[in-house]
Amino acid sequence: MTDRTDDDALEGAGIDVSRRGFLRTASLAAGGAALGGAAAAQETPDPLITDVQDWASATGEGVDATPYGLPIRFEGDVVRRTVSWLTADPISSINFTPIHALDGTITPAGCAFERHHSGAIELSKDDYRLMITGLVDRPLVFTWEDLQRFPRENHVYFCECAANSGMEWGGAQLNGAQFTHGMIHNMEYSGIPLRVLLEEAGVQPEGQWIYVEGADASSNGRSMPIEKAMDDVLVALTANGEALRKEHGYPVRLVVPGWEGNMWVKWLRRIGVTHSAVEAREETSKYTDLMPDGRARKWTWAMDAKSVITSPSPQKPITHGTGPLVITGLAWSGRGAVTRVDVSLDGGVNWQEARIGTQGGKYALSRFYLEIDWDGSPMLLQSRATDDTGYVQPTKDALREIRGLNSVYHNNGIQTWAVYENGAVENVEVGS
Amino acid sequence: MTDRTDDDALEGAGIDVSRRGFLRTASLAAGGAALGGAAAAQETPDPLITDVQDWASATGEGVDATPYGLPIRFEGDVVRRTVSWLTADPISSINFTPIHALDGTITPAGCAFERHHSGAIELSKDDYRLMITGLVDRPLVFTWEDLQRFPRENHVYFCECAANSGMEWGGAQLNGAQFTHGMIHNMEYSGIPLRVLLEEAGVQPEGQWIYVEGADASSNGRSMPIEKAMDDVLVALTANGEALRKEHGYPVRLVVPGWEGNMWVKWLRRIGVTHSAVEAREETSKYTDLMPDGRARKWTWAMDAKSVITSPSPQKPITHGTGPLVITGLAWSGRGAVTRVDVSLDGGVNWQEARIGTQGGKYALSRFYLEIDWDGSPMLLQSRATDDTGYVQPTKDALREIRGLNSVYHNNGIQTWAVYENGAVENVEVGS
Repeated sequence: MTDRTDDDALEGAGIDVSRRGFLRTASLAAGGAALGGAAAAQETPDPLITDVQDWASATGEGVDATPYGLPIRFEGDVVRRTVSWLTADPISSINFTPIHALDGTITPAGCAFERHHSGAIELSKDDYRLMITGLVDRPLVFTWEDLQRFPRENHVYFCECAANSGMEWGGAQLNGAQFTHGMIHNMEYSGIPLRVLLEEAGVQPEGQWIYVEGADASSNGRSMPIEKAMDDVLVALTANGEALRKEHGYPVRLVVPGWEGNMWVKWLRRIGVTHSAVEAREETSKYTDLMPDGRARKWTWAMDAKSVITSPSPQKPITHGTGPLVITGLAWSGRGAVTRVDVSLDGGVNWQEARIGTQGGKYALSRFYLEIDWDGSPMLLQSRATDDTGYVQPTKDALREIRGLNSVYHNNGIQTWAVYENGAVENVEVGS
Repeated sequence: MTDRTDDDALEGAGIDVSRRGFLRTASLAAGGAALGGAAAAQETPDPLITDVQDWASATGEGVDATPYGLPIRFEGDVVRRTVSWLTADPISSINFTPIHALDGTITPAGCAFERHHSGAIELSKDDYRLMITGLVDRPLVFTWEDLQRFPRENHVYFCECAANSGMEWGGAQLNGAQFTHGMIHNMEYSGIPLRVLLEEAGVQPEGQWIYVEGADASSNGRSMPIEKAMDDVLVALTANGEALRKEHGYPVRLVVPGWEGNMWVKWLRRIGVTHSAVEAREETSKYTDLMPDGRARKWTWAMDAKSVITSPSPQKPITHGTGPLVITGLAWSGRGAVTRVDVSLDGGVNWQEARIGTQGGKYALSRFYLEIDWDGSPMLLQSRATDDTGYVQPTKDALREIRGLNSVYHNNGIQTWAVYENGAVENVEVGS
């Protein structure tokens, strides 16, 4: 880590650290001469470098011994994590994406959020079957190989658990973007439009809903209006190019763009076409929002626009002292595409527009950046997403005013990180 | 696998396989009734399904025991592979992406192509330094932490080895898209525009080239015109969201959009600003193209437009018999974006336009599909990419006419797969 003490030492050694106040620069005596070739370049003296690394002098290891590549050992902390008290048993658990440690927008499958209600089952392609039944002209059963024969599409979509940030309803609780906002991933899914398979079966006029089940013990049954099923839902076979991971529903899962992750049924087994909604467990006692008057909001499928600053954040403090600082984060909307992100350094009093690094498409993560010159004063960092419907991400207090404090799901309120003079970052609440 | 024998057996059992001639469908007695709920759905009798899977009756395994997720064991064949005779020693080797088994456009890092000339070195972030030297006002050394303070961009780019398909110059040799075209990957890279770092150092007017070196023993030094360096080159810190893998140059590599992979220097150590090209080993004796008259083409940096059918292909034969068949593949151009892909079923006599599943941006992979009704006749499958410069991918023979047979690099000729009546696929040559 570079800190001000190191810089002082370098200045004492005659090394220029003045430019923009932070670069650990070395005025190399021989560096000003044009390089005549590789040999000349290697002769350039550089005391700093020979101190730390025995450069370009020894061969590394071969790579072909690794059957499937893994991150380098130095990145062992960049993994999914769970919160042990959140669920009763590891058979029903949640693994959060380490969003604080990632950049760009794609989530690698190896650390991508997943939630399972009765364990991750192992289902081979040979054993796999998908049934379409109910109000259809021709009930069908598809093998995995049958599915290979239908037209496929590719889309980058986010999958967010309805409970993402749910533990923040009552106030700042969890110290890390991974835990407050990590029930989300963003992958390039490829699969067959569900519409194509439903048309193959022939949906009858009275078929106004579908009821979707997985092959795991929970079944995780969910109802969905036929309009969504015939619109952009995918029967997905791959994520980020490769077969789905076991914990993401291998070999086939449903992808329901923009809608809560619980509807993205894994180990997809059956799609029943029905006249009305089933009102099963996962859409009545769960995945509804208890309002202050005792009634529950239901069918709250779409994930409203939301954003979070991933760095700096509690797990990613500022370790380089004052001066240039890159603030970055993620923004998304389950109702369309993000069009703008604003960032506040003072808890929502003043806002400035962030630079969009990746403009995610509909229902995909966007990456934003704001570069500032940090003077070392404490900050209250916030981000605020706007989507192409004109919706602006609200404050937590504005949400609480309407929904009260009974809710678990659908907290898309603005998150606040307090940054202290020493660079440490903490999850805090500010009034709005 | 579903084959015609299976279908016959199903028809004998009274199961309807007539619709479009391939679906393994079951007319379920109870399936026509509306589902009343999860319980009712589970009561639907289905002899096919209970035969193969003890559905929804047992819990799976917890997921949190896995520190970093890996593919399910059934996908153990979807890994990088090398060709043992291709390089003298595993210290200097190549690992090919299993493109035949992937869909969409993103390559997971765990199976993404990599080439190393003196092993994959292990370099920690703390030990990392990047030097900018030569014809600059202020020679600079950046720590990894310094680099975190500069503005970053995110781009999906392909990285293709100049030698990709190089073994095909003399004729069809390797039986698999992984081996003929797998020296490529496509990831979302995030990093700092090299321009920003060069401007920090202050490039002098006589600085017309840069010379880039890695920290591995090979150094892999490459020269590049300053115009490219100041245009779109990135000093990349992450790929697909996470830190670069060791074999992809952890912690920092150069990304040179559209240009041959050898210039994407890994374990990036030094950028020297020079008056002229260094003409080092990797750009004279290697990575040049020996022409029939004994002279060598050099500075052939940009990868010309190219495509390949990934399925069906020799490693991905047709196993489902006649009827609906999805033909799919990848297309790319190092001079811009792919605008169109055509597919031929008869070795280039007739062409039809493929459907673009993902329209890759500049210097990114595109995914194409063509759905056909296969009558079981032999086919000679080819694909042909066109990019936004108007360039059309040539035949191998057209390339050979000009470049002869001495070349190793820059073979972007049209590939041919012979598909036989039994669905097997083979790499073949056809005259053009």
